[in-house]
Amino acid sequence: MKIQLALDRLSIQEAIAIGEEVREYVDWVEVGTSLIKEYGMDSVRALRNAFPEKTIIADMKTIDNSRYEFELCYRAGADVATVMGVSPVVTIANCLEVALSYNKEVMIDLLQVSDLHFKEISTFDKAIFCQHLSKDLQEDASNTLLDKPIFKNEKLNYAVAGGISRTSFPEIMNMNPKIVIIGSAITQSDNPKQAAKFFYELTREKGNCT
Amino acid sequence: MKIQLALDRLSIQEAIAIGEEVREYVDWVEVGTSLIKEYGMDSVRALRNAFPEKTIIADMKTIDNSRYEFELCYRAGADVATVMGVSPVVTIANCLEVALSYNKEVMIDLLQVSDLHFKEISTFDKAIFCQHLSKDLQEDASNTLLDKPIFKNEKLNYAVAGGISRTSFPEIMNMNPKIVIIGSAITQSDNPKQAAKFFYELTREKGNCT
Repeated sequence: MKIQLALDRLSIQEAIAIGEEVREYVDWVEVGTSLIKEYGMDSVRALRNAFPEKTIIADMKTIDNSRYEFELCYRAGADVATVMGVSPVVTIANCLEVALSYNKEVMIDLLQVSDLHFKEISTFDKAIFCQHLSKDLQEDASNTLLDKPIFKNEKLNYAVAGGISRTSFPEIMNMNPKIVIIGSAITQSDNPKQAAKFFYELTREKGNCT
Repeated sequence: MKIQLALDRLSIQEAIAIGEEVREYVDWVEVGTSLIKEYGMDSVRALRNAFPEKTIIADMKTIDNSRYEFELCYRAGADVATVMGVSPVVTIANCLEVALSYNKEVMIDLLQVSDLHFKEISTFDKAIFCQHLSKDLQEDASNTLLDKPIFKNEKLNYAVAGGISRTSFPEIMNMNPKIVIIGSAITQSDNPKQAAKFFYELTREKGNCT
């Protein structure tokens, strides 16, 4: 189980500073959508340079213009880029095609994906599927990350994202995702290093370190 | 009927140069998603400064983190920003709330919106609805912009986008959208000014100049 640090709503300098502080306790570093939309590919290049040893994931949330956007990301140094699962199937297929040609990876964000559409796109089994409770949906505390068809499909690699906290973390770990994506529980913590260490050590204690 | 010039897959300098060339024949200037993701809010600020007399629309394609992203756009000088119609309803509601507080506008992109979800979000009648055939879907020539429920709802303001050409333009005009979004038929033309003039004059001949 890997820990992906989501860096959002920060300047590039702040993102690098937090990443450096928690470096030893995270595996993947995500350039958040807000950084990309505010600073463009400079944000991906800066985090690539600052963290050469990490897997860099660009949260592009591509929904169209797939080849162009994915080439932008990979050329800027990203190892993984995200596409919205609600996109037309051709969009997701294009992303995987570009990823293959760059020897890189694709994460499919399942936000708003219907069970029917999930069935259709779950054939893209080279991708990582991200079960995602969006920031906006987190405004209603009754919304939940769990109880989704993704967790019943044992053939797929999946990630989980969306307001994961110290409290909800054990339940998330029980689902055994490949990647747990954590943002504000680290970046907005009074002590980001201690927070990252908390999550990291729990994953290692469980022996889920692959 | 307004003509919105979509500026995509260009450097900021190229986008400004094309915009200046066709200035007298377009009404709205769109900072395309690809410019935003490549250059961030610098692209919105640059086009705002270059075209102070035009309505500037930032094609953010927001699908989460709505308040933050819409504030970014409006602060950078955009008059209109786009949100994906497939977003959770709360996301679209937040965008309209931010727009109201800045006295700005929202365009809802209907890409991949089901008839059922359209019915739900069509209550946001202060927004402009954009019937959109995505770039990726245009790869299959059998996909079409027409025959969608949006065109049967006379209460809504709507825009049409997606591979609109000189050939398809008369049919698009018959739907009487508020805004016709044109990209490559102008930007990739051998003579962008002549292309823009063609579309502009057709809209004015029809008397649809409101």
